[in-house]
Amino acid sequence: MSCWYNNHAPCGDIAVSTRIRLARNINGFPFPARMSDEQRLEVNRKIKQVIESENFAPLSLKYIDMKDVPVNERFSMLERHIASREFVLNSDNKAIVLSEDETVSIMIGEEDHIRIQVILPGFQLEKAYEIADEIDNLLCKSLDIAFDDTLGFITECPTNLGTGLRASVMFHLPVSESRGEILALTKSVNKVGFTIRGMYGEGSDAAGSLYQISNQITLGISEKNAVDNLRVISEQLISKERQLQKNLNLIKTEDLCMRALGTLKYARILSSAELIKLIGRVKLGINTGVIKDDINPIKILIEGQPYMLMKTYGNMTEDERDISRAEMVRNALG
Amino acid sequence: MSCWYNNHAPCGDIAVSTRIRLARNINGFPFPARMSDEQRLEVNRKIKQVIESENFAPLSLKYIDMKDVPVNERFSMLERHIASREFVLNSDNKAIVLSEDETVSIMIGEEDHIRIQVILPGFQLEKAYEIADEIDNLLCKSLDIAFDDTLGFITECPTNLGTGLRASVMFHLPVSESRGEILALTKSVNKVGFTIRGMYGEGSDAAGSLYQISNQITLGISEKNAVDNLRVISEQLISKERQLQKNLNLIKTEDLCMRALGTLKYARILSSAELIKLIGRVKLGINTGVIKDDINPIKILIEGQPYMLMKTYGNMTEDERDISRAEMVRNALG
Repeated sequence: MSCWYNNHAPCGDIAVSTRIRLARNINGFPFPARMSDEQRLEVNRKIKQVIESENFAPLSLKYIDMKDVPVNERFSMLERHIASREFVLNSDNKAIVLSEDETVSIMIGEEDHIRIQVILPGFQLEKAYEIADEIDNLLCKSLDIAFDDTLGFITECPTNLGTGLRASVMFHLPVSESRGEILALTKSVNKVGFTIRGMYGEGSDAAGSLYQISNQITLGISEKNAVDNLRVISEQLISKERQLQKNLNLIKTEDLCMRALGTLKYARILSSAELIKLIGRVKLGINTGVIKDDINPIKILIEGQPYMLMKTYGNMTEDERDISRAEMVRNALG
Repeated sequence: MSCWYNNHAPCGDIAVSTRIRLARNINGFPFPARMSDEQRLEVNRKIKQVIESENFAPLSLKYIDMKDVPVNERFSMLERHIASREFVLNSDNKAIVLSEDETVSIMIGEEDHIRIQVILPGFQLEKAYEIADEIDNLLCKSLDIAFDDTLGFITECPTNLGTGLRASVMFHLPVSESRGEILALTKSVNKVGFTIRGMYGEGSDAAGSLYQISNQITLGISEKNAVDNLRVISEQLISKERQLQKNLNLIKTEDLCMRALGTLKYARILSSAELIKLIGRVKLGINTGVIKDDINPIKILIEGQPYMLMKTYGNMTEDERDISRAEMVRNALG
């Protein structure tokens, strides 16, 4: 199946993925947390009708009731970054709308009635926003979307009020990280209304050197401005990390990255945490030219997640998964 | 150049090498530590004459004045286990006699006038003793070797008095070691007059799980008995370690050993200590069948030692050697 991480990625050396999320609600219904089952089904029905209408035909979106999605597949959606943890943990009377390549996903019945998400590989803020905006416009045409002239879009959580937009870019920042620059970076982006957090691992511990930066401000700013601000910050981050990678000691970098590749090719037991760590190094090796193999590290990273593995290998214990993960990785690395 | 570690090794899964050493002295000269330069040269001359005589012709031994051996080559002799540390640290007026494949080496002017050494790959106590004994007999025919009817052969150090024989076998004991059985083994062989020590690393720390067992008793015992006792103990050790290796968890062993192989194949910087550690794991992988490649781990281990490397790559700093070592290992592993 084609997915966002299978595609070519602009600025893919440093930017792993770009996401735009728009939170929308329909007038006349309480927020999902307080909806009755009947109301949920009513909202689902309304949205299904719109998605399957003539207007949406060019987008080829598919409406899926979550009750028809097996549990493992639900969690694998989380691992592919097309649904949220809260959404897959409790999918009762919820639905999701997906484009064939899953770059568009619309969660129905998450914190808000509608969560439009567009995820693209690499650094593609404008394009991702364009697609999300198109879907938003189409939905606004057919549904009575809750909007206040002063506040903007009405959302369950006040932190989304206004644009309801969350724009984010996931970066691979191994050298900024090893130089201890993440803390300073965090402070400086906080000042201008953005946050940075590690994508994997707990707290500030960013396994695989993967960090996501996203906007915090949704009120009193236009969607376009929010996206523009993130673009400027992202370009600085990309340029800084590229410069640092260029100035690395070649033989030490080669040693670090080739060892990671060697371990991935030869290990017979591989935990998820170790995969993330080693994949980060392989990615650095590709960026710096010390690894010349045709490898898509992000694809391997995502397909090595527990539920993604179980889609291929069936239900397994954690120990069995570690063995299957090593096998999958070996196959992927050829 | 053919060397002992290039050859086929009986019981080579567990036994790395077998050594026999005989210490002999010539009547009418003080021990080397108290010899004048003239006396040293006189002893050298006498032995050279014998080695180059008709009697020794079938053995094709070569007499080499250590002053003709470059310093790096001297230290590489130590790394190939054909000369002792004391001998190469101070080679003034000393000489060595070597067979073409270096399985026979005779140090002249070490602690005793003559130190005959035979080193063979794997477990070959009888054969090694046979060769050493033949050389000993030939030397005794032509030289006035110091011998006392009550004590036996006279040596500088009392611990060698009697047979002057030190028989030793180097073992690779990864599983006995990981099961914590080396201490018990050490105690039990001590009781019957043998010692065990790690081949590499300091003190009891045996890098690469390589251990050497050797006899301590030389007085009141025949050479044959000493060799026989070591043979019996060695057979027990080999059989025990083989049994332990058979019962290993296959996937965990495969993971451990293949990772070691992967690191050796991909590393760009490799210290001597890490090489020893990883080679030990590769050897275990070969023994247990999880590594099927045609690899001679002991050859790689020896050729990865600092002075052996500098024979190929020229003089280098330690950092440069770590890079050349990684290159040599990659080439050796194909």
